Amino acid sequence: MSLIILKIGGSVITEKSSISRAKDAEIDRISNEIVSFKKDSDSQLILVHGAGSFGHPQAMKYRLNEGFDAKGAYLTHVSVKELNSKVLESLNNAGAHALPVHPLSSCLLENGKIIDFQVGHIKVMIEKGIIPVLHGDVVMDRIKGALVLSGDRIIPHLAIALNASQIGAGSDVDGVLDNNDAVIKKITQYSFVDMRKNIKGSGSTDVTGGMLGKVSELLELANKGISSRIFNASRKGVVSRFLYGEDVGTLISDK
Amino acid sequence: MSLIILKIGGSVITEKSSISRAKDAEIDRISNEIVSFKKDSDSQLILVHGAGSFGHPQAMKYRLNEGFDAKGAYLTHVSVKELNSKVLESLNNAGAHALPVHPLSSCLLENGKIIDFQVGHIKVMIEKGIIPVLHGDVVMDRIKGALVLSGDRIIPHLAIALNASQIGAGSDVDGVLDNNDAVIKKITQYSFVDMRKNIKGSGSTDVTGGMLGKVSELLELANKGISSRIFNASRKGVVSRFLYGEDVGTLISDK
Repeated sequence: MSLIILKIGGSVITEKSSISRAKDAEIDRISNEIVSFKKDSDSQLILVHGAGSFGHPQAMKYRLNEGFDAKGAYLTHVSVKELNSKVLESLNNAGAHALPVHPLSSCLLENGKIIDFQVGHIKVMIEKGIIPVLHGDVVMDRIKGALVLSGDRIIPHLAIALNASQIGAGSDVDGVLDNNDAVIKKITQYSFVDMRKNIKGSGSTDVTGGMLGKVSELLELANKGISSRIFNASRKGVVSRFLYGEDVGTLISDK
Repeated sequence: MSLIILKIGGSVITEKSSISRAKDAEIDRISNEIVSFKKDSDSQLILVHGAGSFGHPQAMKYRLNEGFDAKGAYLTHVSVKELNSKVLESLNNAGAHALPVHPLSSCLLENGKIIDFQVGHIKVMIEKGIIPVLHGDVVMDRIKGALVLSGDRIIPHLAIALNASQIGAGSDVDGVLDNNDAVIKKITQYSFVDMRKNIKGSGSTDVTGGMLGKVSELLELANKGISSRIFNASRKGVVSRFLYGEDVGTLISDK
């Protein structure tokens, strides 16, 4: 049984410039793409979504990554859970069976590193055809008190613990872009060495952190046999095409 | 550092005869009693609440304890989480720092038995002065798919894993009653042998299941050195008196 982990970035499903504003129509569109595929296929599926304009404003206001703040942790968690509830409602309305898994309740960090992430219940969910839906969240940390754990950081942990076959990272760009804004079709650890400097934004450390960091993390998974694709989930039909195994966005693979 | 685990029954904070109707004023009253104590004391505190008219109607409609039902599991979880959000909001408004821990996200059953319940994050919360708030919930089960796990079943597991010093079980009765409706002040494993038949309702297995079962479970904890009290949380001030160590309701102890 193959397991796909699908990440949908916060920018795809929320208005990043507002506070706690969801793109309801986009959430419903993606739910329908997921449900159509799920009815066709016996692949297991886990969905991880970003927080976008839910959670981030609260996490910034209370400076959660500078130090522990109990009220900030509470308000951030309430906000990301509100977005998660919308995603769950949309998926279940579209005909999927989906259940939430909140990182605050299932995960523990030590100095920012995941040291415990329960997956036993997630295993039972996917075996039962249920889509577990996780999200970026505030999470307790044995040293720091509480920190923000992004959806992107959850993915590698789940992928290895549950032996995923493929990862899809849906954002609002068409894939990994080169300096001419063309999508790089494929990256392997060998091609990455030369290609690295041609990746758009690699000159500015700020922008790079995002895409170069993501590619590096996904290359590590590729070395363990878990390939991934970075694609544009804001374009209609692309999530569906990824799920059906089509050649969308940038493939990150070990061969 | 002493740890108190406080259970508040679903009948105390919800209208049991309605569907999904919270007793908001009662929730606020109990929050205030908890917060006043917490400001006075450096005791650590965990709150576990029942589901009452949240969750139970959905769990019954979809017969969750007869067999797996993904939609029923989803709707039950959404409902109990709604009640949990109200409790959290009330506590935080009253000035406590409180965070939710959802059993669906942190617990795994096998044939109804808890085989995994993450407590690492709960430990960090209580060390930081945060009140973790758990609740009766639908939980994944490796054999049965998903089952309802009551707040009462969570307590012994947490008490042992976190080495609690005392447990308070707040319901809507004044304690363990004898056949004359008088509160039995104290039960030990030795007194229980003779007292058992005098406990109100012990003739009818139906009613008994509740109180006798609860007393038996708490006696097991008493044998491990964790005493508990069963008291009436619907009466104003009794939660507070329990927290301050007063002699309310029925004490269940090993000596």
